Amino acid sequence: MSEVSISDYLLTHLERGGTVPMNRQLYGLLRDGILGGAILPGLRVPPSRALAADLGVSRNTVTYAYDQLIAEGYLEARTGDGTYVADTEPDMARLPAALTGDAATADGGAGSLLSGRGERLLSGTGASSAQWGAFMPGIPDITRFPNEVWSKLQARHWRRIAPGLLTYGDGAGYLPLREAIASHLRTARSVNCTAEQVIVTSGTHQSIQLASTLLGEMGDTAWVEDPCYWGTRNVIRSSGLAPLPLPVDEEGMQLPEEALRTPPRFIFVTPSHQYPLGPVMSLARRRLLLEYAARHKVWVVEDDYDSEFRYSGPPLASLQGLDSNERVIYLGTFSKTLFPGLRIGFMVVPSALAPRFARANAELFRDGQSFLHAVLADFMNEGHFSSHVRKMRQLYAERLACLQAAIRHELGDIATISGGDAGLHLALGLPTGTNDVAISQAAKVRGILTRPLSAYYAEPTSARPGLMLGYAAVSTESIPPLFAELAQEIRGQLCHLDTRA
Amino acid sequence: MSEVSISDYLLTHLERGGTVPMNRQLYGLLRDGILGGAILPGLRVPPSRALAADLGVSRNTVTYAYDQLIAEGYLEARTGDGTYVADTEPDMARLPAALTGDAATADGGAGSLLSGRGERLLSGTGASSAQWGAFMPGIPDITRFPNEVWSKLQARHWRRIAPGLLTYGDGAGYLPLREAIASHLRTARSVNCTAEQVIVTSGTHQSIQLASTLLGEMGDTAWVEDPCYWGTRNVIRSSGLAPLPLPVDEEGMQLPEEALRTPPRFIFVTPSHQYPLGPVMSLARRRLLLEYAARHKVWVVEDDYDSEFRYSGPPLASLQGLDSNERVIYLGTFSKTLFPGLRIGFMVVPSALAPRFARANAELFRDGQSFLHAVLADFMNEGHFSSHVRKMRQLYAERLACLQAAIRHELGDIATISGGDAGLHLALGLPTGTNDVAISQAAKVRGILTRPLSAYYAEPTSARPGLMLGYAAVSTESIPPLFAELAQEIRGQLCHLDTRA
Repeated sequence: MSEVSISDYLLTHLERGGTVPMNRQLYGLLRDGILGGAILPGLRVPPSRALAADLGVSRNTVTYAYDQLIAEGYLEARTGDGTYVADTEPDMARLPAALTGDAATADGGAGSLLSGRGERLLSGTGASSAQWGAFMPGIPDITRFPNEVWSKLQARHWRRIAPGLLTYGDGAGYLPLREAIASHLRTARSVNCTAEQVIVTSGTHQSIQLASTLLGEMGDTAWVEDPCYWGTRNVIRSSGLAPLPLPVDEEGMQLPEEALRTPPRFIFVTPSHQYPLGPVMSLARRRLLLEYAARHKVWVVEDDYDSEFRYSGPPLASLQGLDSNERVIYLGTFSKTLFPGLRIGFMVVPSALAPRFARANAELFRDGQSFLHAVLADFMNEGHFSSHVRKMRQLYAERLACLQAAIRHELGDIATISGGDAGLHLALGLPTGTNDVAISQAAKVRGILTRPLSAYYAEPTSARPGLMLGYAAVSTESIPPLFAELAQEIRGQLCHLDTRA
Repeated sequence: MSEVSISDYLLTHLERGGTVPMNRQLYGLLRDGILGGAILPGLRVPPSRALAADLGVSRNTVTYAYDQLIAEGYLEARTGDGTYVADTEPDMARLPAALTGDAATADGGAGSLLSGRGERLLSGTGASSAQWGAFMPGIPDITRFPNEVWSKLQARHWRRIAPGLLTYGDGAGYLPLREAIASHLRTARSVNCTAEQVIVTSGTHQSIQLASTLLGEMGDTAWVEDPCYWGTRNVIRSSGLAPLPLPVDEEGMQLPEEALRTPPRFIFVTPSHQYPLGPVMSLARRRLLLEYAARHKVWVVEDDYDSEFRYSGPPLASLQGLDSNERVIYLGTFSKTLFPGLRIGFMVVPSALAPRFARANAELFRDGQSFLHAVLADFMNEGHFSSHVRKMRQLYAERLACLQAAIRHELGDIATISGGDAGLHLALGLPTGTNDVAISQAAKVRGILTRPLSAYYAEPTSARPGLMLGYAAVSTESIPPLFAELAQEIRGQLCHLDTRA
């Protein structure tokens, strides 16, 4: 293409009266011509005045396009000698023929754009696509959240917001919030801590990742409960740890002797309300676990995700409060007590580790959101947190009782109920052989959300069928009719089972 | 201890008129006695009525303590036969003598509680402990943020908040926000994208971690610029990748032939405003990089952290917009345009990958905060974002000019200035041999924040001394006097250098 034919090329392709302004079109056409090889390096482009006349546009239009192309390196202005197409074509000769390396040995197939670990991450049970509705487990009744109180506290801060609340955090979280959390944990959860030991995170996933990375090497073993929360398995695996599932019985995680012979780096447990089945870890097991951890320098990670809601008897003390050897990392969250979308969780770490956890939090996650921390701190300090938890505890107890009654009414002795002493869900156990995945899928078609229990097991052979049912976010009146619908699906599957047997 | 001596033990230790209620004291004393071995398993505790009389407390007080201890497993009630101390002592015989395993081979020293990778994470340059003040680089003027507008938009949502805004997210972020971001990126950054390709994250660190985990295996190589942003190095290393630093010149990251021979899995670049030095990657280098990435299936991660602020000439197009082979993952953030504590960033990924990135985001980070996304979407859609960026661009240009003048006035030709065409900081180059760390430390004592340039280099031998100076968050009037103070420290160090030479 010559200087003249550039004008022709542009004249042919410019769209008059289109939505894209002429200067942007001119820029785009020249750029595409250069990138595509139609306009070759070294060519002199027409002077702006001449091109403007040829195209019947203002000279400014041309100058704008040229300036942009010069700034981005497509054209170069040579003083006193016009403007030329720059030589920016990649020198293919520089790209060597024989190659080694990561990319060269990559997966071939078009389908496998992801890494192996990426594929694994997406292959297991995980976050549900629907998050709100009966009987989605683990979700509090967010319609009862005191929006107005929150909004008022929020407005108070934003009216004259302190710059410190808008910049990066210090890694540990806003101090008044850490103080409020420490005070709550000491009273309500018998956690042995000061505010200095509290690290505010964006939730339990982040807490687990921090602990895994800071305290474990790639390849280290971490015992996890089987069944357990999918997030724990996903996050520790993605942090490079190797999860070893240990079965759960009515006293919590079992500690078989073969396993004890090879101490892991971590033990992840949910001692106050095993997730998903519900048992409380017995005191004997707790003491054995802590003694073992102390002797062999194992880190125990206690995920205390929903113990603020306990319906039968007094609240149970945390495992952390029983530990006198600083081996427990305690994790908590506001996802169940307030609302999941808040994304504020916390961890309590031994004093000696606290400053390092704070720094690592800043290094890995670049923390912030002090403006949210400040609102939450006020919310706690002014008593709204306790009163909300108290109210919700009553409400959820009523809904739990209603669901339990519905289960007994609809299913009688066919199903077992576990884990209903605390939290926001119960585990409905179904006869061996029941296809809980099929029930869950059929229920979803009817708009009823459940999660199949078998999906939480690492070992499919040991999986017990059942359904995880959340009752906290379902109005009491609607529990019986909705469960009746679900029971229909369950009975359908059970018939199926009888026929096969 | 016998049944009777339990009463005596309690009588001795109960603190009358203290701040701890009697029932909590009773619970605590019995618990500690059992845990400490003073009160042995199998012992019958006194009947509540008898103990209450012995201690002179109400029977309720004793019942409360007993119930709690029974619930937690310290005591057990045998029907018709009183209450006994449960056997919960860990059976030490179960703990084997000879051990193998992760914990057994652990570090011995008390100082090294952290893992090796934890120690490494904390050993490099990283997040600064101070985040606000002259001349902290990378911080916008958060005092100019339109709080009132934000607060109003926030209040509008919170008055009647939709439950969907308070629960977990869907992994990709709130759709109207993704649409607003896509539209901004198409116009302002020439990014080739639809809303479906946008994944909202909690910032660039999270974006980098997602890309590293989903697209790379443990041990894969990632080219990084040298010098580069400390966060990039930290996050990719903690994600299991091996960073390979490649030097930077005035055209951006160099692509030496030896390196090209072994394609990495990733190339991390800051093409629009190299961090920290400032050059724009030349078009020839961009085209070579993209061609190489396409041929060898390398992922290019473009961190476009502050290009909304460009002071000389028109804004430059993104690298992503030039790519026609879907090899670029584009990263952006609101930390510079709005405020860092917001913790909202975003990534643009190839269409085929978008649903998987969304799911992985939910799996790894359990996303949420749609209530914040919604406010930001309104802020953008109602034009506040553009108008704020426009205002700040003017303001920062004025401050930049003022700092450049102060540098020339105070230091003349001693120092070089680079990277001042865009963003929120410039890099002040100092003569070879200058101890920039010492200057930065001395300045900090005077309350002036800077970051030594040498600390951003992976290879200490190639490190050039200098200072990173942020000018966006310093009022124009205070720049000359503050820089004069800093210049004093610099000249002091230079004298020192002369003396040694």
